[in-house]
Amino acid sequence: MMTTDTVPKLATRVVSLKGKSARITGVCKGAAMIAPNMATMLCVLMTDAELLPEKCAASLTAAVTDSFNCISVDGHESTSDSVILLANGASGVGPYEADEWIAFQAALNEVAQDLSMQIIRDAEGAHHFVQLDVTGCRTREEADRIATAVANSALVKTAICGADPNWGRIVSAAGYAGVPLAETDISLVMNGFPLYTAGTPLEFDAAAVSKSLRENRDVTIELKLTHGEAAVRFWTSDLTKEYVELNADYTT
Amino acid sequence: MMTTDTVPKLATRVVSLKGKSARITGVCKGAAMIAPNMATMLCVLMTDAELLPEKCAASLTAAVTDSFNCISVDGHESTSDSVILLANGASGVGPYEADEWIAFQAALNEVAQDLSMQIIRDAEGAHHFVQLDVTGCRTREEADRIATAVANSALVKTAICGADPNWGRIVSAAGYAGVPLAETDISLVMNGFPLYTAGTPLEFDAAAVSKSLRENRDVTIELKLTHGEAAVRFWTSDLTKEYVELNADYTT
Repeated sequence: MMTTDTVPKLATRVVSLKGKSARITGVCKGAAMIAPNMATMLCVLMTDAELLPEKCAASLTAAVTDSFNCISVDGHESTSDSVILLANGASGVGPYEADEWIAFQAALNEVAQDLSMQIIRDAEGAHHFVQLDVTGCRTREEADRIATAVANSALVKTAICGADPNWGRIVSAAGYAGVPLAETDISLVMNGFPLYTAGTPLEFDAAAVSKSLRENRDVTIELKLTHGEAAVRFWTSDLTKEYVELNADYTT
Repeated sequence: MMTTDTVPKLATRVVSLKGKSARITGVCKGAAMIAPNMATMLCVLMTDAELLPEKCAASLTAAVTDSFNCISVDGHESTSDSVILLANGASGVGPYEADEWIAFQAALNEVAQDLSMQIIRDAEGAHHFVQLDVTGCRTREEADRIATAVANSALVKTAICGADPNWGRIVSAAGYAGVPLAETDISLVMNGFPLYTAGTPLEFDAAAVSKSLRENRDVTIELKLTHGEAAVRFWTSDLTKEYVELNADYTT
């Protein structure tokens, strides 16, 4: 589906606090120039919960870390990125106890992730929505580096566009991410099919994996390392002729 | 022109040493999976000059730094990159004096750069050959970071494909390269047309720049900073529908 950000992106969650309801609603725009650190992306999150300003900042940072900073359409950051959290206290309740904070934060994270996924679903020219889970890393920073390298690889993105279970492109992108690793540290599963385990390409039914990639808009990639417990879930799109068309024909 | 590395890539230079001639000839392959740190790129450089092994290594590293590590087709490194320098001494002369070393190194650099540019001219699906000069940087490493960010930007590459003098995409890619800079530190010239000076977009004849991009395969981008004296010359290609076609249709 070709788009230039014509799809409205909205998400809402309700948190129950002391028997009352507080709502969190977000709206955003963005379909390209999308990369971690955000890009041409504008988002306003609104809640009627009572929130102190200092709590807002920490809560928003936590939510953005696992949502808007985990998406990439084209790896191109922009200058106008903004995520704003507004709280007016109109519900008369706020997350004051520890368990209330946990519930509120979880709901805020969900709204931010929901919107982030909507951006990737509306990615310019995209045919596929890709969920990439990088697990087993030493640190979150290393997981982020690997996820970003894979998600931004033109060769990974064109392989997915072409329904090609090209494990080599994914593994080699992980290899140049700047994280110390050996090929034996890596295993790879795509759409549930194990393709590569502990450094060895597996015998797999390439036609079946390709069919699964061709027939499903949603793609899952699980890249499992053996280094530790850190992980990241990242969302990206494929690279299509329509993306090139949209961005080559656009004129300033 | 769509290619899958069908064009032979050869380069030769002759160095005159003590009245005799020594030759340097190189051959290489590669048309995609090309990025700094080399990629699916194989190159053999051969010379009949007399070279000591320890001199070979230093000389080759110097040549690669300004050639094969300054090209990118798609930002995707590979696992099989190799540049090999063979010297058999058959010419009976070698670069022993300081000025002879300078002449030999210059010729070796030229062979390596010539081959590197041939790779970019043969880049998969490319319509344009882009020479990017990043100057005025604090260090070579900062110049490299900026050049790589600009050269690997899908939005810069599609803009060039579409003959769009899109200074915003170039400047913003420089901005996210991880080098501390203010927009007022940047000036930009494309195909000889100044587009942006010291942080301010200029009035320019967009139709004339676009015509120049449309009518010439070769594109020059000069990105000038105000930080120091370090610089890099980098070569890249544009991103076209043919690149996507070639890499989406390819199957393992």
